[in-house]
Amino acid sequence: MKISILTICPELFDSFAASHVIRRAKELGQLELNIVDIRSYAKGSYRQIDDSPFGGGNGLILRCGPVLDALAAVLQETDANANRTYVAALTPSGVPYSQGTAESLMAVDHLVLICGHYEGMDERIYSHVDGLISIGDYVLTGGELPAMVVADSVARLLPGNLKKGSAEEESFSVLNREDGSQLRLLEYPQYTQPADFRGEKVPEVLLSGNHEAIRAYRQAEALRITKERRPDLLRDSD
Amino acid sequence: MKISILTICPELFDSFAASHVIRRAKELGQLELNIVDIRSYAKGSYRQIDDSPFGGGNGLILRCGPVLDALAAVLQETDANANRTYVAALTPSGVPYSQGTAESLMAVDHLVLICGHYEGMDERIYSHVDGLISIGDYVLTGGELPAMVVADSVARLLPGNLKKGSAEEESFSVLNREDGSQLRLLEYPQYTQPADFRGEKVPEVLLSGNHEAIRAYRQAEALRITKERRPDLLRDSD
Repeated sequence: MKISILTICPELFDSFAASHVIRRAKELGQLELNIVDIRSYAKGSYRQIDDSPFGGGNGLILRCGPVLDALAAVLQETDANANRTYVAALTPSGVPYSQGTAESLMAVDHLVLICGHYEGMDERIYSHVDGLISIGDYVLTGGELPAMVVADSVARLLPGNLKKGSAEEESFSVLNREDGSQLRLLEYPQYTQPADFRGEKVPEVLLSGNHEAIRAYRQAEALRITKERRPDLLRDSD
Repeated sequence: MKISILTICPELFDSFAASHVIRRAKELGQLELNIVDIRSYAKGSYRQIDDSPFGGGNGLILRCGPVLDALAAVLQETDANANRTYVAALTPSGVPYSQGTAESLMAVDHLVLICGHYEGMDERIYSHVDGLISIGDYVLTGGELPAMVVADSVARLLPGNLKKGSAEEESFSVLNREDGSQLRLLEYPQYTQPADFRGEKVPEVLLSGNHEAIRAYRQAEALRITKERRPDLLRDSD
């Protein structure tokens, strides 16, 4: 899989590109991370990448030209074997990103993520992408952290990166109900050594060795925590 | 404002700490960013920070000791004038983070963010924090990117960092309805130079200079886009 990230702040990706999950996916030959500087596609001596909005208003809007020229160049470099390409722009006005989206993006050969000022990108850019992604209902300086979130969530699912079995048991695990429908739950509480930490003890059942009792406890706790913190997850699946 | 981030991967914050919004908030004397290495509070020659979960299962769980000792040290260093401290752990099982949370965190003098393996932190850690924050329904390698998301969203709101007026008009702007209730909408489309980009034109109304028509167009578009991409935002406020 190749992930190309178009950005006006390429230096923001230095630490991320050196992170364990990205380095390991690269070493395993599972991932190529391609950081592209939008500014190098801007024309003129000022290489202007943004400008004031038409119709008035504050803030600067990312211009079409540099972004779409960078996108065209990146798509041209797509490997001939990469028949599945997906281009997404990161914006708070996008469709909410979820673990389901991360899983479906694993089927893509070349994922292109466009970052820009989070407050504004020329709307005409959006007609050249496959999707708009929002990582949550908050405003950030730019699309760079959201692009890292998407890249990290996908990279950790690539073969060899994730410890076997941990994907199925982690947060947002699915509970199959008797009627065939599925319920997405938050993760049950986890505990590790020591069993007694300065007087705070691990629940007895987890030390019992009774696998059936542990399974039942964890499922009940996952349901309790989901009801408490995220009743919306239970409503959605009704 | 001081933001302390407790992490097992302090090097992941190098690029972020050098980003424009953080550097500028520091220069203005508005922000002190304090990255704390949890591992330096781990004991023994191996400085073990994680271990297998009680009751079985895959993945490694972050231990109480190093995290809570790091937290105690950081809280002890809190300025005597910092009377409002808020400690949050980043976890996909937390309460959804929103622009409203970012705004309310601006009232905090010392914000402490605890990152760990996103798949698991010893549950007993949570009884020592004020809140659990989730930036979205997806699983990441660690709480580091989520901590950057929270820090960025707060830092950009600090006085002097944000261009005047842009906070009120940006994504998730609030529409006051006649009955006194409020509706949160996605941002209306933005356009900048050139007015004609390779045949794709800016909507005429934005070039009209008619401020009332522009305002009406933008409000109608914000409502249309919200209905199309985020019907949940309209339902929530019912």
